[in-house]
Amino acid sequence: MKNKFYTLLLAALVASPVCFAQRVLEDFKPSPSAQEGKEFPAVNSQNIVRVSISAPEAKLVQLDLGGVKYDLKKNAEGVWTGDSAPQDEGFHYYQLNIDGASVPDPNSLYYYGASRWGSGIEVPAADADFYARKDVPHGELRETYYYSSTTESVRRVYIYTPPGYEKGKKKYPVLYLQHGMGENETGWGSQGFTAMIMDNLLAAGEAVPFIIVMENGSVNFNFGAMRPPQGAPQGPRPGAGAPGQAPQGPRPGGAPGAAPAARPGGGGGFNFAAQFQNILLNDLIPFVESNYRVIAKQSHRAMAGLSMGGMQTKSIVIANPNEFSYVGMFSSGTFKPAEIAEEDLEAFKKNVKVIFMSFGSKEANGAAQIGGAAEEWDAIGIDGVSYISPETAHEWQSWRRSLYQFAPLLFRK
Amino acid sequence: MKNKFYTLLLAALVASPVCFAQRVLEDFKPSPSAQEGKEFPAVNSQNIVRVSISAPEAKLVQLDLGGVKYDLKKNAEGVWTGDSAPQDEGFHYYQLNIDGASVPDPNSLYYYGASRWGSGIEVPAADADFYARKDVPHGELRETYYYSSTTESVRRVYIYTPPGYEKGKKKYPVLYLQHGMGENETGWGSQGFTAMIMDNLLAAGEAVPFIIVMENGSVNFNFGAMRPPQGAPQGPRPGAGAPGQAPQGPRPGGAPGAAPAARPGGGGGFNFAAQFQNILLNDLIPFVESNYRVIAKQSHRAMAGLSMGGMQTKSIVIANPNEFSYVGMFSSGTFKPAEIAEEDLEAFKKNVKVIFMSFGSKEANGAAQIGGAAEEWDAIGIDGVSYISPETAHEWQSWRRSLYQFAPLLFRK
Repeated sequence: MKNKFYTLLLAALVASPVCFAQRVLEDFKPSPSAQEGKEFPAVNSQNIVRVSISAPEAKLVQLDLGGVKYDLKKNAEGVWTGDSAPQDEGFHYYQLNIDGASVPDPNSLYYYGASRWGSGIEVPAADADFYARKDVPHGELRETYYYSSTTESVRRVYIYTPPGYEKGKKKYPVLYLQHGMGENETGWGSQGFTAMIMDNLLAAGEAVPFIIVMENGSVNFNFGAMRPPQGAPQGPRPGAGAPGQAPQGPRPGGAPGAAPAARPGGGGGFNFAAQFQNILLNDLIPFVESNYRVIAKQSHRAMAGLSMGGMQTKSIVIANPNEFSYVGMFSSGTFKPAEIAEEDLEAFKKNVKVIFMSFGSKEANGAAQIGGAAEEWDAIGIDGVSYISPETAHEWQSWRRSLYQFAPLLFRK
Repeated sequence: MKNKFYTLLLAALVASPVCFAQRVLEDFKPSPSAQEGKEFPAVNSQNIVRVSISAPEAKLVQLDLGGVKYDLKKNAEGVWTGDSAPQDEGFHYYQLNIDGASVPDPNSLYYYGASRWGSGIEVPAADADFYARKDVPHGELRETYYYSSTTESVRRVYIYTPPGYEKGKKKYPVLYLQHGMGENETGWGSQGFTAMIMDNLLAAGEAVPFIIVMENGSVNFNFGAMRPPQGAPQGPRPGAGAPGQAPQGPRPGGAPGAAPAARPGGGGGFNFAAQFQNILLNDLIPFVESNYRVIAKQSHRAMAGLSMGGMQTKSIVIANPNEFSYVGMFSSGTFKPAEIAEEDLEAFKKNVKVIFMSFGSKEANGAAQIGGAAEEWDAIGIDGVSYISPETAHEWQSWRRSLYQFAPLLFRK
């Protein structure tokens, strides 16, 4: 009986989070993702998120974070305040609900994700030092525009150049780095902290300097910032190129024929991959390689991405085994040698140096399999690397850490 | 009696905008500042702004634009929709009010202004072509970080480099371009369309290529984007500089002695000017001139700003007559030769080439006086230029046009 009683008690405790609810510690500090000068959103030492908003006439105000809606409470002045459950360290998208309206928190900074510009909350992580803004030499995150013949439009791209690039003369390798579904070309540079991660790695001598190119893999949605009015209708580009810009014809040194995208589908038959592959291979890489000091060789070209971006990476690498030598898939499933077409396998073994796969430890799918997949690559002479981000889910803290793990492996061979 | 009746009727009509209200034309199109794929915020051919938001349980939803709150109306599905009065062409900050809560419109893009990140509405202008995104050679908008000994912190700066800079070897002149009160270093690059304006001017051969540097003149608020966690406490920088970065000591070639900010106050005694002057002269200009291919001479250095930024420009130029040769004040008052200290006047006449002043035609203060002030400069041998932006107020369309007018005047002498 006694045993059974304890078993039941234990079951009740496990089933009811209320029983385990901590007393909320009042050591809240404004989140790094709060707007300057704002007290909220704030996070305490238990990783509880607190938001606050004045809404005197509202009947119900909620914090909508991580799939849970937390009711706020109104004080005498009409200010609603409330807390979330403890959150994972790192970055989460969220919103407020005011009498049924789903809106950004006016106190937060805004990020593109979940297919909208909206609020994000940064829960300070114990390992935040690797993306801290420090007094080290800083590279540049450059926003520029180029003409894509694939989309027949002027597209935006972000390019990270490492410290030393501006004043130096040498040529650099390039990583093409993609965001996830519902995100865009701003993600890695904003909530991804790409520049800070690289600046810190380089200052510590832990990576070879390289350029990072970040474009929009959700082909029809290349408009993260306000769209300047488009000029004249943009049909196919007249002539060989505007003055001062290198002609952007089919890629020199790429696959013969007009369109390198010869093998449709690639590994996963992923929807966006085919369109984005054309942009990447026919427009973006030629733009980068003819306008920046880069080493235009497979051996000095890497591709990686998170979630959808990693699936695109895999698909494009499988369909184009002579383009990239380093491959990163962050929360994007597994990649095994058996997925390479038999006629490509020898070239692949010769030219591909590292296959990196990662997951957050809290992601259900696949995390257990990447270790085995990495061993399969090792067995055929390609470095297979797997990484599990501790105590994080399908979110940016997993991907910041993945980049931090992946970058030091690049361009060493 | 009859006359009096008509007089009363006329008075009633004038007092009551309802009587003159146009029929709202249903030719609304999504604003360029709507998020991708969103139907609202929209603007029609009468420059009426329409917003829409689902808020089924709300009692009152308003559009708060240009100091006026417009009530929206709820339909059977709980979606609130409503229109503003006709707006000036260009860009305006706005927000929604939901049962007393003032929040960003979830459908809009977000901008820093009015001392917060929040919604902005772009009302397409007849002259929008000068900042349209076109298939011309594009420069780069670079985000980077540098150490300021004035603030003892790592600060963010945006640097526009013109097309040709990346691949070329020549050195360029520099314009230091400042935002207004309640704005930050992102303003000119985002809602200001600086890169597009310059790219288009340069493609048309209407300006000499130069670099533009945009920092934060509201000294304590250099955190427009999410603040990455700061690393170790940032006291005065140890040693001469981190490896790979030029030492950032007192400015070479500047005023003798440790602090060039020798003349406090300058013309207007403007609060922010003294602090920002120290950042600009002691930290930012040395950073730019030792890290970029620039011509480090007064003859190739310009400063301009909008509103508060123009007042800072005037104050800094008056206090430092040997630093800048081109001066731009957009909606920032007038500047007359009498404001130069007598002992500086000869040097000023010799070294300063252009004084540009502008206002929107709808701005009450000062617009009438800049023409006369410009003539006073002409009379002493400095080009005085005044410009009135038609049918715009103290807003970004005035400042976009001011930059478009000012840039072609720079570095011609």
